Amino acid sequence: MPDFVYLNGKILPRGEARVSVEDRGFVFGDGVYEVIRVVRGRFFAADFHNRRLRRSLEGIRIDLPANQSPEKFNEIAAELLEENGQLEGEATVYVQVTRGVATRAHAFPSPAVDPTVYISTSAFKPMTRLKEEGTRAVTHPDLRWGRCDYKTINLLPNILASQYAVEQGATEAILIRNDEITEGAKTNVFGVLDGSLRTHPCNNHILPGITRSVVESLAAELGVEIDQTPIRKSEIPKLEELFLSGTTTDVMPVVALDDQPVGSGKPGPVTRRLQKILTESIYSSAPLGD
Amino acid sequence: MPDFVYLNGKILPRGEARVSVEDRGFVFGDGVYEVIRVVRGRFFAADFHNRRLRRSLEGIRIDLPANQSPEKFNEIAAELLEENGQLEGEATVYVQVTRGVATRAHAFPSPAVDPTVYISTSAFKPMTRLKEEGTRAVTHPDLRWGRCDYKTINLLPNILASQYAVEQGATEAILIRNDEITEGAKTNVFGVLDGSLRTHPCNNHILPGITRSVVESLAAELGVEIDQTPIRKSEIPKLEELFLSGTTTDVMPVVALDDQPVGSGKPGPVTRRLQKILTESIYSSAPLGD
Repeated sequence: MPDFVYLNGKILPRGEARVSVEDRGFVFGDGVYEVIRVVRGRFFAADFHNRRLRRSLEGIRIDLPANQSPEKFNEIAAELLEENGQLEGEATVYVQVTRGVATRAHAFPSPAVDPTVYISTSAFKPMTRLKEEGTRAVTHPDLRWGRCDYKTINLLPNILASQYAVEQGATEAILIRNDEITEGAKTNVFGVLDGSLRTHPCNNHILPGITRSVVESLAAELGVEIDQTPIRKSEIPKLEELFLSGTTTDVMPVVALDDQPVGSGKPGPVTRRLQKILTESIYSSAPLGD
Repeated sequence: MPDFVYLNGKILPRGEARVSVEDRGFVFGDGVYEVIRVVRGRFFAADFHNRRLRRSLEGIRIDLPANQSPEKFNEIAAELLEENGQLEGEATVYVQVTRGVATRAHAFPSPAVDPTVYISTSAFKPMTRLKEEGTRAVTHPDLRWGRCDYKTINLLPNILASQYAVEQGATEAILIRNDEITEGAKTNVFGVLDGSLRTHPCNNHILPGITRSVVESLAAELGVEIDQTPIRKSEIPKLEELFLSGTTTDVMPVVALDDQPVGSGKPGPVTRRLQKILTESIYSSAPLGD
């Protein structure tokens, strides 16, 4: 299969796509990114992703040249999907923008340089069995910085937590800050407790997840209200249901946390209902935000 | 002037040194680094830097292949200094190791891949005038993650704080966490208050600075005791002296903080004494840790 990516105006084979060692992405992690879900060539919730990419860029103050925009990146991604034979079936689009190439110095390059834009697509296989049976997660201290609401490539704490999860036989690390669940290393987290659906409020400690907000809308449609009071660590043993949400995770039931069963140890009814309508929304012909 | 760098076993012109877009440095900031000061081909405090590089690598769990080590990187750097005509005068050596190239996924590549090693040298001009007159700094919230003691390339919070400093006409941002000075965006911070020399203790919130620990030894030689009680924000107006320490900063007096003079508004006596013996130590023929 062909495997082309886009880098700074050129479409080229992935293996030939290289950036300077002085790219600020490489020496500082000075960039932001998005991952967009694509079903049969249709981008799911593209508007939401584009808005968030804009917000992340503004947050770390990277200016795109006038002829570039998240919408233009979608067009380039569509071209890549075609070149790579990924217009049938499912795929993901990865878009990364860094502050560009300059002699290493912490402050922004002055005069400014063109940002580096990297776009890549991959065939995607949803985690169907895991979504059906539920997954295992572990808790891990939330060591991340104070602006988790920007989707940046400074991902080392997420990496270390994810690796810890893998080593514990789990698929996600659920992060705890000040004795409260913030979110997962790669996902947002929801729990059902005393019949109410709880998740961390959107602030600087979590990523404003696209699937998180889709789940919010869908919950409203189902008449399920969301209580944005963080789940306290001490409440974990009392959780009736727990699930993750994310662009490639969809709604993923968590049936065991730190080797303890969550609720009945099986995906719960609220999780199932949300999972079902999210799936319908993703696979329908008129996806949300499109 | 020739400008060669080292990348994964090869010495090549800086402009030709490129890494894959799938390097985990570029997509995750998944790596660590060191900057070493070199005077006339002599590495200052190389042992300390090598020990800290090892500690950072262990901290984020990157294994070097058996034939690689921080000491080997020093040898390569010495070769680069020669090739680049930087054996006379002053220079800095930059060493960066990332977890290598792999299809993007948060957890470590399995099986492991070879780390990416990038080494670069630059001619260096000490900030003589600024060290003489003192510099201006600003305070900024410390937004960094919970393991600032590893010298990683996840440097976005440092970048944003540094840029803020530049925009305020200052050269450094002094970071405040929980109403206490931790360190600078690129340096450690010391203050003189009620006649005692204060600095933040070495814990997960600051980098164990090499120059910081050299200053500690030199202070002991001078009979100046260091009190590792963090300087509280509320104590800032009462500071008699304030200075930064770092590999390229040496001991740098701060004479104004947030546009307010520090002490007399001139470099103070403790700062001057430490600056003097640090300079002697760096430029002497038998540097510390060598």
